[in-house]
Amino acid sequence: MSYVDMSAAELEALRASLEQEYASHCAKGLSLNMARGKPGADQLALSLPMLDEVNSSADLFAEDGTDCRNYGVMDGIPEAKRLMAEVMEHDQANVCVFGNSSLNIMFDLVTAGYTRGFLGSTPWCKLPAVKWLCPVPGYDRHFGITESYGIEMIPIPMREDGPDMDEIEQLVAKDEAIKGIWCVPQYANPTGITYSDEVVRRLAEMPCAADDFRIFWDNAYCVHHLYDDKRNHVADIAAACEAAGNPNRYFKFASTSKVTLPGAGIAAVAASAENIAEIKKRIGIQTVGYDKINQLRHARFLRDAAGVDALMKKHAAIIRPKFELVERMLEDELANTGIASWTNPVGGYFISFEGIEGTAKRTVALAKAAGVTMTGAGATWPLKHDPRDTNIRIAPTLPPTSELQQAMEVFICCVKLAAVEVLLAR
Amino acid sequence: MSYVDMSAAELEALRASLEQEYASHCAKGLSLNMARGKPGADQLALSLPMLDEVNSSADLFAEDGTDCRNYGVMDGIPEAKRLMAEVMEHDQANVCVFGNSSLNIMFDLVTAGYTRGFLGSTPWCKLPAVKWLCPVPGYDRHFGITESYGIEMIPIPMREDGPDMDEIEQLVAKDEAIKGIWCVPQYANPTGITYSDEVVRRLAEMPCAADDFRIFWDNAYCVHHLYDDKRNHVADIAAACEAAGNPNRYFKFASTSKVTLPGAGIAAVAASAENIAEIKKRIGIQTVGYDKINQLRHARFLRDAAGVDALMKKHAAIIRPKFELVERMLEDELANTGIASWTNPVGGYFISFEGIEGTAKRTVALAKAAGVTMTGAGATWPLKHDPRDTNIRIAPTLPPTSELQQAMEVFICCVKLAAVEVLLAR
Repeated sequence: MSYVDMSAAELEALRASLEQEYASHCAKGLSLNMARGKPGADQLALSLPMLDEVNSSADLFAEDGTDCRNYGVMDGIPEAKRLMAEVMEHDQANVCVFGNSSLNIMFDLVTAGYTRGFLGSTPWCKLPAVKWLCPVPGYDRHFGITESYGIEMIPIPMREDGPDMDEIEQLVAKDEAIKGIWCVPQYANPTGITYSDEVVRRLAEMPCAADDFRIFWDNAYCVHHLYDDKRNHVADIAAACEAAGNPNRYFKFASTSKVTLPGAGIAAVAASAENIAEIKKRIGIQTVGYDKINQLRHARFLRDAAGVDALMKKHAAIIRPKFELVERMLEDELANTGIASWTNPVGGYFISFEGIEGTAKRTVALAKAAGVTMTGAGATWPLKHDPRDTNIRIAPTLPPTSELQQAMEVFICCVKLAAVEVLLAR
Repeated sequence: MSYVDMSAAELEALRASLEQEYASHCAKGLSLNMARGKPGADQLALSLPMLDEVNSSADLFAEDGTDCRNYGVMDGIPEAKRLMAEVMEHDQANVCVFGNSSLNIMFDLVTAGYTRGFLGSTPWCKLPAVKWLCPVPGYDRHFGITESYGIEMIPIPMREDGPDMDEIEQLVAKDEAIKGIWCVPQYANPTGITYSDEVVRRLAEMPCAADDFRIFWDNAYCVHHLYDDKRNHVADIAAACEAAGNPNRYFKFASTSKVTLPGAGIAAVAASAENIAEIKKRIGIQTVGYDKINQLRHARFLRDAAGVDALMKKHAAIIRPKFELVERMLEDELANTGIASWTNPVGGYFISFEGIEGTAKRTVALAKAAGVTMTGAGATWPLKHDPRDTNIRIAPTLPPTSELQQAMEVFICCVKLAAVEVLLAR
């Protein structure tokens, strides 16, 4: 029965029973964490053989003869560039493999726009105002970067096929202060949707008042399929931008963080020849170079896109049941209650949950008090401000299945309790 | 005999003979490189056992229980922090261990000053002018960072005991646009000198017009002694700044680049509690974290300061003969010619060479044409502009001894030829 059709008396009775259930959860003394998109221990074990690829008796020279033990090479050893170029479907000549964090590459590029400008444009720090498009719900750490530079963030509603292009086109056409957009175009964080070909084309083609408008194309989940038979594949923003005559409009990012070992992976940026030349010039000032030994380790372990795909199937076999468990529990407990909706992604790392207005913060606080840490409510919005207070990001991968089930029991109880509280207060 | 006392006829005769010698060098078709301070292959081999410390069967948890295979920990695992705190002689609580490049930490901190300011100061990008003190000769990559932000660099003469403190004190007292100074305080790059206790104290105590003046204390060679019985040890800038009531004035840097594997090492920053708190806040936005697996590898291999010292003695045994060879050849061939002076460092990676005015560029060009690549003349000055064109940085570590000897024969011939050319043109 839908909660919204219940009488006050029915809701009161429901609250009493939910409060009792909640108290019993609290009594368990749980300590469970679904806050971040972290792989579980069994996933991490998949990549341990990688650590044996490079040891004291290994050949430590890259295929072009570079001694990976010494200084030198700013943009990645050839085999690592080839690997990431395959994964990113990009011309290897315009791919740079850097350190362990694609988020760090994005931070550095926003910083570069802010301090140096792109391809001769005015550095953003010299402008009176800079704005950024933020499809919501989105990735909190993206928003954290633009927030840290005082950039005004404009939330853009997400549709089934990507961000609202009508709104975006209207905004960028007339406002040259808008310098960029955050995109997770495939298996988006947190909604799991993949941008349609039309959205990709329109992003590439739209007239922008700012010459230095940049699409930050964080294809973090490009190889993160949950189902073999239901794979998404986002169109290539590079090809679309070139075809549209805007070849410098995008930066593509990817990493092996959720392929091999998070924090000990390799990350890459792909862009136009002009953008890459500018990036390389800056990097030559910014660092002595990146860890080539780790690049070698990855290239030898993963080999190529097929090697990555084989490994990702093993990941999927581990995490697919977790996603299915969460979706089944949500369906069993919340379908037809009228108080919740959620996504059923076929890839990526998250399920996006929508409660009724004014319940997300309360739900997360209730869960926290019962020992279940969720991603903070509001985190999926710029400045952590979800104006309707509805969205919660569920990250099912880290906990073992038994813990996940416990955590979801608590979460669902909290969702119901928060909804009943709000409905009674109406 | 001193070249400067020679008659024109004697110089002409000398030139003819030097040109003949030079032609014979050119005929050898050499390809030798003394351009950068890179360890030689036998040095790199010393750290290969490190690669076996972490393999697929190793315990991959840090001593505080952190799973080094997953996300998390922004400031370094405890054992890596303890190791670097020992090396840097700093309170472990105020040390952060980051990625593979201390230069990158410095770049990020200059960037932070430029974009965010320090501890509430005005971001430098909002100021009409920013200036920086650059002891010369110095490290080209330091100067490259400040140059890239359009910061005006003021050369400060280096003395036997550090930079000219009279000049520095006068400048910083009255000019609040001066925001920092580059220092390599022990076995300086390239002169090899170590700052005296008095210089350290005066840097810490001097009144600065700018509240946000920062000493970038790049103690890159803190453990790089060439002789067991002739060790330098620079006074601690942190203690001096605290004693002077300027606890936030410095950032200390170190890395294992020339201890283990350059490019695949770990790097650290040490500072006051206030500065470290600000750094941690920024880092939480800037990256997903650094490579904890590599931190673990280093901590287990090096263990502690004593472990580092034992390894550095092995390095010294390899490179000391190279320094001695260079110094002996310079002495044999150039002593009493009046056209050259050089340093005889007891640590670090470089010998600093001074020719007569107007000869450095020509010397390096001659050597290059004969197949011997030296550090570019002028590189040791801001904007690569050595106003008297005298200084050349000699980096003896990379070539095997036989090649080093050949390279130095060429170099010395070029020094003489360039000097004779200049003397004849006077």
